[in-house]
Amino acid sequence: MAAGGNIQSILVTGGNRGIGLELVKQLVERPNPPEWLFAACRDPEGARAQELKNLASKHPNIVILQLEATDPGSIQTAAKKVEAHLGGSGLNLLINNAGVMPESTLESATPADMLDVYKINLVGPMLITQAFLPLLKKAAQGSSQTGLSCGKAAIINMSTIGGSIGNAPSMSTFQVISYRCSKIALNMLTRCQSLGYKEDGILCTALHPGWVKTELGTAKAELTVDESVRGILKVLSSLSEKHHGIVVNWEGRTVPW
Amino acid sequence: MAAGGNIQSILVTGGNRGIGLELVKQLVERPNPPEWLFAACRDPEGARAQELKNLASKHPNIVILQLEATDPGSIQTAAKKVEAHLGGSGLNLLINNAGVMPESTLESATPADMLDVYKINLVGPMLITQAFLPLLKKAAQGSSQTGLSCGKAAIINMSTIGGSIGNAPSMSTFQVISYRCSKIALNMLTRCQSLGYKEDGILCTALHPGWVKTELGTAKAELTVDESVRGILKVLSSLSEKHHGIVVNWEGRTVPW
Repeated sequence: MAAGGNIQSILVTGGNRGIGLELVKQLVERPNPPEWLFAACRDPEGARAQELKNLASKHPNIVILQLEATDPGSIQTAAKKVEAHLGGSGLNLLINNAGVMPESTLESATPADMLDVYKINLVGPMLITQAFLPLLKKAAQGSSQTGLSCGKAAIINMSTIGGSIGNAPSMSTFQVISYRCSKIALNMLTRCQSLGYKEDGILCTALHPGWVKTELGTAKAELTVDESVRGILKVLSSLSEKHHGIVVNWEGRTVPW
Repeated sequence: MAAGGNIQSILVTGGNRGIGLELVKQLVERPNPPEWLFAACRDPEGARAQELKNLASKHPNIVILQLEATDPGSIQTAAKKVEAHLGGSGLNLLINNAGVMPESTLESATPADMLDVYKINLVGPMLITQAFLPLLKKAAQGSSQTGLSCGKAAIINMSTIGGSIGNAPSMSTFQVISYRCSKIALNMLTRCQSLGYKEDGILCTALHPGWVKTELGTAKAELTVDESVRGILKVLSSLSEKHHGIVVNWEGRTVPW
């Protein structure tokens, strides 16, 4: 199978910038693009969605969705729209990519800091998965593929090596405590989803995209967004049972807990 | 050193029931009890604090503190009271024991469920540690002991094997997603605290008390609260640098991430 090939329908959250926007770009430009590529963002009418809108105007398979991860109503509305577009088919691949990483230290973090970041980075992906689960199950049921794969049905949660507790010592200067706590919780959520949805045929994997030159990763990062996303798409096409419930990086290597 | 011996001052949150109350009981009844044993609970005047009050009436070294983990004001007030009691000395041992474990499943968990549990199980211990950090640093500075130990200065965060991502498959029927996500985040917090406070001489360890017959653990649990707490006190007395930033169980064994 070609990298990322044969995935009929994909939803990416945070699709208007950074890794999310680049995923949309590279997916529509490949020889075998998805039939439907749902790009969700908080404010499709805002200036920060302009690049995505320009892209969608050239590719009719891109559908821009308004989706606010902290608003259950907006998630439900988005799920209904996706269902209508799919016209009886399921959703193959849900990429929970949207997230935030504000600075926060052990000494200065406040309850509001911790709860706001947890709400966006952990509760958001949980709610989005709950809302799209019927469509993911439908894709798995309708697939002739055996085993688990992104081409059949999958939930990919964008995690980070900063959420790896085993790697913590090498990252002691990484002062984003609210982010790290939320992302390790997202790894746990992924693991629990992998146990809960295995029998439904839905692959559940957390993905570390690398340290990427985006607004979130800053200009000091190691990888360009192009390099990261090329790696991610290759990895997505290769995911199988052995990646179910674990964290892998943009090169396909297992990230320790 | 005798088990748990030579710890001059200890604060236990959730000291009115379950493991917290038993910790208070066993600590005051030993041959070398702490000079000050601060037992914090949400409602010292309520019926659920009666057993603790009876115990405190017989042991003048027990000081009952009102402390609500989700209320920064109550935490600050408690810290000022503890400081006044200690009269210039530091606090040797902070045990963040209070926590909740409501039922919650992947499918049914709501934002309120997730955020409420995170607030109590993760944000509470973080705020309490922030407030008591000056007293813990003072204890470390005033100690003649080398290395790290509970007798010098320590933060013990009560975790659980349910927060271990590596153990998740054996616990797939354990439907407490909000609790598991909050407790793995608490392990991350402990790890980050261990990196942040090592140079201050403060030991930071997460502790899995076992599955204990308490209100939280239910009657189906494996251990009596007496067995668990006897184990915990023995472990606390043996903790050193090699336990810094990891999770250990009530028998002193390392719990995988």
